[in-house]
Amino acid sequence: MARVLTPQAEDFPRWYQDVLAKAELAENGPVRGTMVIRPYGYALWERMQSEVDDRIKAAGARNAYFPLFIPESYLKREAQHVEGFSPELAVVTIGGGKELEEPVVVRPTSETIINASFAKWVQSYRDLPMLINQWANVVRWEMRPRLLLRTTEFLWQEGHTAHATEQDARDYAVRILRDVYEDFMVDVLALPVVVGRKTVRERFAGATNTMTLEGMMGDGKALQMGTSHELGQNFAKAFEIDYLSADGRQEHCWTTSWGSSTRMIGGLIMCHGDDNGLRVPPRLAPTQVQVTVVKEGSGVLDAAANLRDALKEAGLRVGYDDRVDIPFGRRAVNAELRGYPIRVEVGPRDLAAGNVTLVRRIDGSKSPVALTDATATILAALDSDQKALYDEAVARKEQHTEDVKTLDNAIEAAGSGIARVPWAKVGVAGETKANAVGVTVRCLTRADGSVPDSEDEKGLIAHLARSY
Amino acid sequence: MARVLTPQAEDFPRWYQDVLAKAELAENGPVRGTMVIRPYGYALWERMQSEVDDRIKAAGARNAYFPLFIPESYLKREAQHVEGFSPELAVVTIGGGKELEEPVVVRPTSETIINASFAKWVQSYRDLPMLINQWANVVRWEMRPRLLLRTTEFLWQEGHTAHATEQDARDYAVRILRDVYEDFMVDVLALPVVVGRKTVRERFAGATNTMTLEGMMGDGKALQMGTSHELGQNFAKAFEIDYLSADGRQEHCWTTSWGSSTRMIGGLIMCHGDDNGLRVPPRLAPTQVQVTVVKEGSGVLDAAANLRDALKEAGLRVGYDDRVDIPFGRRAVNAELRGYPIRVEVGPRDLAAGNVTLVRRIDGSKSPVALTDATATILAALDSDQKALYDEAVARKEQHTEDVKTLDNAIEAAGSGIARVPWAKVGVAGETKANAVGVTVRCLTRADGSVPDSEDEKGLIAHLARSY
Repeated sequence: MARVLTPQAEDFPRWYQDVLAKAELAENGPVRGTMVIRPYGYALWERMQSEVDDRIKAAGARNAYFPLFIPESYLKREAQHVEGFSPELAVVTIGGGKELEEPVVVRPTSETIINASFAKWVQSYRDLPMLINQWANVVRWEMRPRLLLRTTEFLWQEGHTAHATEQDARDYAVRILRDVYEDFMVDVLALPVVVGRKTVRERFAGATNTMTLEGMMGDGKALQMGTSHELGQNFAKAFEIDYLSADGRQEHCWTTSWGSSTRMIGGLIMCHGDDNGLRVPPRLAPTQVQVTVVKEGSGVLDAAANLRDALKEAGLRVGYDDRVDIPFGRRAVNAELRGYPIRVEVGPRDLAAGNVTLVRRIDGSKSPVALTDATATILAALDSDQKALYDEAVARKEQHTEDVKTLDNAIEAAGSGIARVPWAKVGVAGETKANAVGVTVRCLTRADGSVPDSEDEKGLIAHLARSY
Repeated sequence: MARVLTPQAEDFPRWYQDVLAKAELAENGPVRGTMVIRPYGYALWERMQSEVDDRIKAAGARNAYFPLFIPESYLKREAQHVEGFSPELAVVTIGGGKELEEPVVVRPTSETIINASFAKWVQSYRDLPMLINQWANVVRWEMRPRLLLRTTEFLWQEGHTAHATEQDARDYAVRILRDVYEDFMVDVLALPVVVGRKTVRERFAGATNTMTLEGMMGDGKALQMGTSHELGQNFAKAFEIDYLSADGRQEHCWTTSWGSSTRMIGGLIMCHGDDNGLRVPPRLAPTQVQVTVVKEGSGVLDAAANLRDALKEAGLRVGYDDRVDIPFGRRAVNAELRGYPIRVEVGPRDLAAGNVTLVRRIDGSKSPVALTDATATILAALDSDQKALYDEAVARKEQHTEDVKTLDNAIEAAGSGIARVPWAKVGVAGETKANAVGVTVRCLTRADGSVPDSEDEKGLIAHLARSY
């Protein structure tokens, strides 16, 4: 069979580009750095949205929508924020055929415009916490774009909340990190993550604390999969989000923000993909089972259609491929490229013996199954493969994570994975040195893996890696 | 009770603004013409998205996502298109701190950029029809913005399709019009629509035929609720969307586009709202039943929570209000403002007799119901009120639709509703005359109400009205 993809071991970035093209996931748009998300890529995103949205709503936040255009003056109100985002802004200077009096910025993130609304909506402690999320596109001008990972425009959800106390804000930022992001990534994406605190240098512009979830890709590099920020009172002061407390005092709120984006599609591809294409975890998969007619024959079309209906009846997301005018091999390659967890081949020879053939994407294994047992077998296989994909990802992460004692060893170990080293051995100067050779401190954790409240805590572990 | 809203009869536009503010639906953004969609407004939109998206997928189209930024040169490729949209464009001239070599336009609609992708994706007749939809924000600079109806940025879905033949394109544009839009508007929004063909003057810029669905608002004005366009080969030629036919010839495709937007929220408000606020049809309502604890008392909280759970179990979308520290009257007014179809009041007095009180938003009627019968009664009431809201809207539409014989009579009748007049009595000159006094030809239909294939057909009826 002709080689469809560049093998991962030969050239991982090239393999990634090949998968995007051949599985019809995404491609470049005409304006530099922009992307077209093709239907199958978008179907993955819709499933991510649905799962993340359910968890956000369970955490009590409500969806809303805020304008794409932000007055330039808003961004300037929080000093660190404007400093961080200025180099990446797209600016509209002409509207309705006329030069605008005040240029407007295309949102790179919405802290400023959402916090301006909060200032109107929050009056008293009874209005708190104010818990808002929006699904939106944002724009950050990218000099070195990479599809789905770093693009000028991307899709995301951004949550913004206001609280009466620092503790309440912190608890909520952690709740989102754990109950929304980590739960989704581990349980649905089957993607283990290191959850930790960013160093001051890696913090979101305007935050007092940024917490992150870092995944490990197939080449050992890290990918930041989502972040949750404590913003302290920085934005509350800049936008005057004040409330009247229960005992009658006027107080500033404490705010948070948190986001996850289409970058997660890139993470999914690079964590689970293999030389034949994507492998999509069953719980995420838009198509969990692809029923494929091998070729026509006595009773084949009926059997295939009945099986499809039975699988749908069992609550599965089922694809159906009876395009027998297209060579079977090509259809099989396409199903593999797209990473459907299970393909059921229905053909005359098997069917004569009362069987269909189950092909599991996780390992390519093929086995005959009695048609009467097919649904139960498939349900069990999906459960098992979800777990197996996670276990595989955990094993690779452990294999490529090394505990070291010095900065130099950490920088070396970061060449092929994550290096864990005492933060005391790195510090701000060590971080600069690592950065100079393309290694970053992905996050800090306590020795037991929990998220520290400050980078000054004793005994913290720094996780160093190369990253996307 | 203090007046919450300006009565409709006193000042309909003011009533509309009052509802938006008091029901917390939407408000102005800081950049002129932009809007913030507040959580309850957005919950209405999410329900609309879900219902419309289901129907679009059932019609075979797949969702995808295309860039916000379009090279200015793309817009210029289709002459009528650029002429129509130029006055409304927002233009980005600065990106990443530098002046751009070619300015980019913030999409006012995506024909150009999506058709450019189609040109790459479509090779042979086997690739057709190509059926794509996207949910996105678009920007059209508005000189006279009105919240949810006409804003600089709005949310919508825009479908784009390419076909092998003109007939196939036409059939699909009509299928979307009928099976997606009309079905949703009638069946879910309970909003009767006149479905017809736009005159040449009212056509989408670049279309060969625009079909529309026009609703009638509470003040007798028309609102364009959605449109479906045949684009002929205009865009296929401009973007070279060619395919190899089954008999080996290179042919241009025929394309369509179609859209519906957050404007439908405005239509919902103005069609069904009354002096107490919104009335949301049960099939659309994010909250179909609001269970309200009147005040605490023996067994009240348990009874209310059990009823809430039973209603959820029955598949309903249920809200729960046990905020007994807020005056009951204020909570009742808020529930009315938001138009929850049914409010169930659970209080000690009723409960002592084994009852709860059902309040139906459609007419404000209150009736005691045995707690044991509550779920069945509510399910029946929701069905009945869905139908009643539709019947009310149909009756008003009929009452405010007049058949007339001359243009002058039509212009007069359009002062309070829709005037139906032979198109032969209007024509292009008559259309100009009507436009001059604020009346437009909303659409043309055949005498039997079906959509004509051309405005030159004999015996067509023109529907004239004032509009939003």
